[in-house]
Amino acid sequence: MSAYFQKELTEIKKKILTLGALVEKHIQMAAEALYENDADLAGEVIRGDYEIDEMEVKIEEECLKVLALYQPVASDLRFLIGGIKINNELERIGDQAVNIAERVEIIARQKKYNFVFDYSKMVEKAQNMLKMSLDSFVNFDLDLAIKVLTLDDEVDFIKKKAYDKIKEAVNTHTDSAGYFINLLLVSRHLERLADHATNIAEEVIYLIEGEIVRHGLKS
Amino acid sequence: MSAYFQKELTEIKKKILTLGALVEKHIQMAAEALYENDADLAGEVIRGDYEIDEMEVKIEEECLKVLALYQPVASDLRFLIGGIKINNELERIGDQAVNIAERVEIIARQKKYNFVFDYSKMVEKAQNMLKMSLDSFVNFDLDLAIKVLTLDDEVDFIKKKAYDKIKEAVNTHTDSAGYFINLLLVSRHLERLADHATNIAEEVIYLIEGEIVRHGLKS
Repeated sequence: MSAYFQKELTEIKKKILTLGALVEKHIQMAAEALYENDADLAGEVIRGDYEIDEMEVKIEEECLKVLALYQPVASDLRFLIGGIKINNELERIGDQAVNIAERVEIIARQKKYNFVFDYSKMVEKAQNMLKMSLDSFVNFDLDLAIKVLTLDDEVDFIKKKAYDKIKEAVNTHTDSAGYFINLLLVSRHLERLADHATNIAEEVIYLIEGEIVRHGLKS
Repeated sequence: MSAYFQKELTEIKKKILTLGALVEKHIQMAAEALYENDADLAGEVIRGDYEIDEMEVKIEEECLKVLALYQPVASDLRFLIGGIKINNELERIGDQAVNIAERVEIIARQKKYNFVFDYSKMVEKAQNMLKMSLDSFVNFDLDLAIKVLTLDDEVDFIKKKAYDKIKEAVNTHTDSAGYFINLLLVSRHLERLADHATNIAEEVIYLIEGEIVRHGLKS
């Protein structure tokens, strides 16, 4: 393939990483809004999501343009298809940041409770997973991508703990089920966020190994 | 493009529809398990999911093979990329059927309550959305695809109703938050199922209109 083509691939990779950085920023903002009960910051995440959406659309168009123009085969073809899918996952991670922010808006409106589930560890793990999955994409690092898959189990474990703790809290604060359900839903959004990071890592493994491991490694 | 190529495209379309039919069957089974509190049927959905996973992997491999072999451009290229994405959505809808089945397994183990939220309308709407989105794909029917997008709001509306009703029920059955939370999570799985059907419809609109409407029509 031509030097022009290689330049286009590098450009696409760079744009995906720029999108990744913006998505990471949105997660961080949503998490801070959660910790601080900050409805304004949550609103910022929600209003800013259009930017992520626009970037995703542009990157996909770019990939399709390059596919049509250069008609790559083998690993270059695979890279572009992988890029389209990773791009898609990033946009959905952005949606999860919005989902969390929407919960925060509701939670912040309700009266304060002594009970707060500490989500910082779960957030940190999910953020790590996203960071590692993007790093594995940049450096074509198989080991790192596989590590993301094992972290997913840890996130699931914390989600189960959140569920148990919050269920118990509902039983002792019977007048405020709404508050606790919203708090619980945060854990599901974080879990899905981690799932999307896992999807990215699986895509990277697929890119590297040249075979689909998506369902095999999971079970 | 050659007649061979056109035959391959037809073959891929057929396989995606076969996968769609299997996914529809799994949703139906998960719904019946929910209505009947049938843990055995729920278990069948969970155990049978590997079949959906395997089909998805095979279809994606097929698409990549055809992309590399024939190097299509314009609408044929777009069709194959769209096929990969729709294939992906179907696999995830299968995962939602599994999620619902897992809730049913937990619910069925717990003691019976008088309170049951009637999910049949929400299930029916979500099923319709999937059916319509697949039909719009087969017939390249723009109007039908757009109709799917409007139905998504109706599903969201029922989800909100479920949330209100179940929240109220938690407050009057304070000893059984676990049961109600699981019942509530069913509504979220159904909502995500409908979201995936929406993604398929958006992909079809994109295929037809040749431009990305994903984020525009939604807001």
